[in-house]
Amino acid sequence: MLDRIRIVLIGTSHPGNIGGTARAMHNMGLSDLALVAPRCEPLTADTVSRASGADHVVHAARRVETLEEAVTDCTLVVGASARSRTLPWPMTTPRALAESLPAELAESAARVALVFGREDSGLSNSELQRCHAHVTIPANPDFSSLNLATAVQVLAYECRLAWLAREEMGDEAPSEAPRPEPLANHQELEHYFAHLERTLITIGFYDPARPRQLMARLRRLILRSRPERMELNILRGILTATEQETHRRSEP
Amino acid sequence: MLDRIRIVLIGTSHPGNIGGTARAMHNMGLSDLALVAPRCEPLTADTVSRASGADHVVHAARRVETLEEAVTDCTLVVGASARSRTLPWPMTTPRALAESLPAELAESAARVALVFGREDSGLSNSELQRCHAHVTIPANPDFSSLNLATAVQVLAYECRLAWLAREEMGDEAPSEAPRPEPLANHQELEHYFAHLERTLITIGFYDPARPRQLMARLRRLILRSRPERMELNILRGILTATEQETHRRSEP
Repeated sequence: MLDRIRIVLIGTSHPGNIGGTARAMHNMGLSDLALVAPRCEPLTADTVSRASGADHVVHAARRVETLEEAVTDCTLVVGASARSRTLPWPMTTPRALAESLPAELAESAARVALVFGREDSGLSNSELQRCHAHVTIPANPDFSSLNLATAVQVLAYECRLAWLAREEMGDEAPSEAPRPEPLANHQELEHYFAHLERTLITIGFYDPARPRQLMARLRRLILRSRPERMELNILRGILTATEQETHRRSEP
Repeated sequence: MLDRIRIVLIGTSHPGNIGGTARAMHNMGLSDLALVAPRCEPLTADTVSRASGADHVVHAARRVETLEEAVTDCTLVVGASARSRTLPWPMTTPRALAESLPAELAESAARVALVFGREDSGLSNSELQRCHAHVTIPANPDFSSLNLATAVQVLAYECRLAWLAREEMGDEAPSEAPRPEPLANHQELEHYFAHLERTLITIGFYDPARPRQLMARLRRLILRSRPERMELNILRGILTATEQETHRRSEP
């Protein structure tokens, strides 16, 4: 289970935090790290020092330019956020999230990404809207921003405890009935959202110049429902049919 | 409750870890920090940088030379330890420990100390034997040593969650019947152990030149029972009576 949990760091500024993240991950038995557009050289003396023997996690990390690339194959994407946003998103806690992971990862193709933002500004609204849910570490309301590697530690710790609890149950663990249909992954969902946006523009329902959070609201709705791949195919079929009909009617 | 949980760092080498500890504490709503014989200047630019706005915790920290001084008034002393020792001590986990704290701290005079050792070598055997229990963060057996400030974060996080759970229960919280007698604090216990050792030498039962873990075993036994102050007075009365009788009989 732990090998299918990916830690994604976006726009990290301090190599020490990448090293600290690697140490926290290896301490808790995680190994899959992705670095999205780091704003520093990821492997410096500081990295190695803070990694304290876990720098192999950084060596093995995938380095990509966009969140998209980092989570393409993920069936659940959760963003760490201390802030509440204008458009409220499904929120969870580290413990509730971790306790859901054994079921979430029951299917072997399932992948979970835990996404952490920049030291100074966290995740952007656009990044947060690519997540199924947001996770917030309960903290002092007057001083709620944790160090990046420390926040990774808390999430990774809860993941490990949830994994250990499942391991201890052993054969007594209720066997998850495998989902009859696999969930859509991040890439399939994003293709759908892009298709949806084009279609809504075509039919004159959506004006990108006056977005009014329409796409964000639709994202939130669809992501909350955790669509299966099959269901997403149906939704895309509807979009295609809509486009064809619109096109047909616009012909002379 | 959180204001009566003290974080004690012994022999810390890196100012950054003191700053990181301060940040983790303030993030989780803790404020009572004691530094025992730090092996670095506690307040450097590194401290302030890692504290990231929580350096007031370091300014307010008590700086002492011995563990004794740091925990004198504490009714529960728990040492963080990754290692299993030759003489097994009561062990707990961060979660079980935190869940016991609301009851543990029901009485207003109660104080809990969470004690963390050196970056390179942890707590000494002698320090571990001054603790009622040892707490171990579940970690990768092949890479179990967490960064100091990160370990503080995990413990402080569990303390905060336990406190929040109690707060949420509000009036529904089962009111802890106040203990009829207060618990002995660390200083009273240590006075007793010193007295016990003297008495055992006097009666020829204990030879400091051949300790054979006798005092450690007695410490473990007594600490496990969490003696009330009144009970400790009785135990000390027994020692005094033993000494007097021995003295009387040795007179001509």
